[in-house]
Amino acid sequence: MLGRLHLCVITDTRQGSGWDHLEIARAALVGGAEMIQLRDKTGSLRELLPQARAIRLLCRSHAALFIVNDRLDLALAAEADGAHVGQEDFPAAQARRLLGPGRILGVSTHSLVQAQAAQAAGADYIGFGPIFATGTKNTGYTPRGLEALRAIRQAVSLPILAIGGITLENVTAVIAAGATAPAVISAVAAAPDVAAAAAAFRERVATAKGDS
Amino acid sequence: MLGRLHLCVITDTRQGSGWDHLEIARAALVGGAEMIQLRDKTGSLRELLPQARAIRLLCRSHAALFIVNDRLDLALAAEADGAHVGQEDFPAAQARRLLGPGRILGVSTHSLVQAQAAQAAGADYIGFGPIFATGTKNTGYTPRGLEALRAIRQAVSLPILAIGGITLENVTAVIAAGATAPAVISAVAAAPDVAAAAAAFRERVATAKGDS
Repeated sequence: MLGRLHLCVITDTRQGSGWDHLEIARAALVGGAEMIQLRDKTGSLRELLPQARAIRLLCRSHAALFIVNDRLDLALAAEADGAHVGQEDFPAAQARRLLGPGRILGVSTHSLVQAQAAQAAGADYIGFGPIFATGTKNTGYTPRGLEALRAIRQAVSLPILAIGGITLENVTAVIAAGATAPAVISAVAAAPDVAAAAAAFRERVATAKGDS
Repeated sequence: MLGRLHLCVITDTRQGSGWDHLEIARAALVGGAEMIQLRDKTGSLRELLPQARAIRLLCRSHAALFIVNDRLDLALAAEADGAHVGQEDFPAAQARRLLGPGRILGVSTHSLVQAQAAQAAGADYIGFGPIFATGTKNTGYTPRGLEALRAIRQAVSLPILAIGGITLENVTAVIAAGATAPAVISAVAAAPDVAAAAAAFRERVATAKGDS
């Protein structure tokens, strides 16, 4: 299923929409997102757990995957399909051990070396980016560009979710460079119509992949 | 073992000492702390995991308990003896499920109702406080005082770690009011000599409990 993804939406709530994770997820799923990643580094678990559980159910009813960023305990408690860790979070091998073999492990990578390490450590997919400049998140990384994405695609067999500054205008080129799908935050979560924005991305990616 | 505790030290690193969690834990254990609680709501897991593992080993060599605050994934990954959750963290019943029956679960409580709920949900001990005013942590709670502690002691059979503004001067009264032991942060972690401060607390509590 991971290899056939068209769209992952990250439910960052700091995009100014005023929506919570559940509201963003619901609209993104209506629009056709096949993976929802709940990302919240600051919220209290007491508030996040009920939202995560609700998203869990929603994703199931849309046959979409539900992934929790960073908080493996939240992923386990909400019975998410998996977890996503960044380079500052749990090391991938440790995350794999905690999640067990049955859950999906995604790892954010920013270089070829990190991508290969993530694959060796048991990741099921990698995030790679930032592809382009983005205002969403100060990652501390300069944009990697499409050439770097192509190099990762050559070196790593895992599905690649490309992230960072991906828009409807450039997503076709991102897929052509080897991404399995885009992972988008503000382009969907901060759109005036979240469901419509998700649907437009999904359609554009499906066309680019020849799936439509 | 929990019922016979004399001192829990919380390794809050925001106390201005410049020490990291491991340094605070080491000195506290040398001074005789029998429980170390690693508390860090903001640090990256990548940095915290090696410290937690080192504290895990240190605690074992001192026959002390190692507890991780909030991050149950870190508690599991570091093979801590248990985890401690606040009212904004995982609900106690959920935390118990994630930790399994073999690990210790502590729950911060601020009222009789919360203390009874924690006991019913499977906590192994409760924190209760703030007993006195404290500058360490803006808990949003007014000091509970010794009368409230006495009421909790009557109503709950679990060990009680009293927290909040506990000093060498008032700890004897805190034990007399029913606390099993104090949980201290700045009174030890920010002391000029952490080991000596821990030793002084431990001795004072042992005397108060008639254990010395």
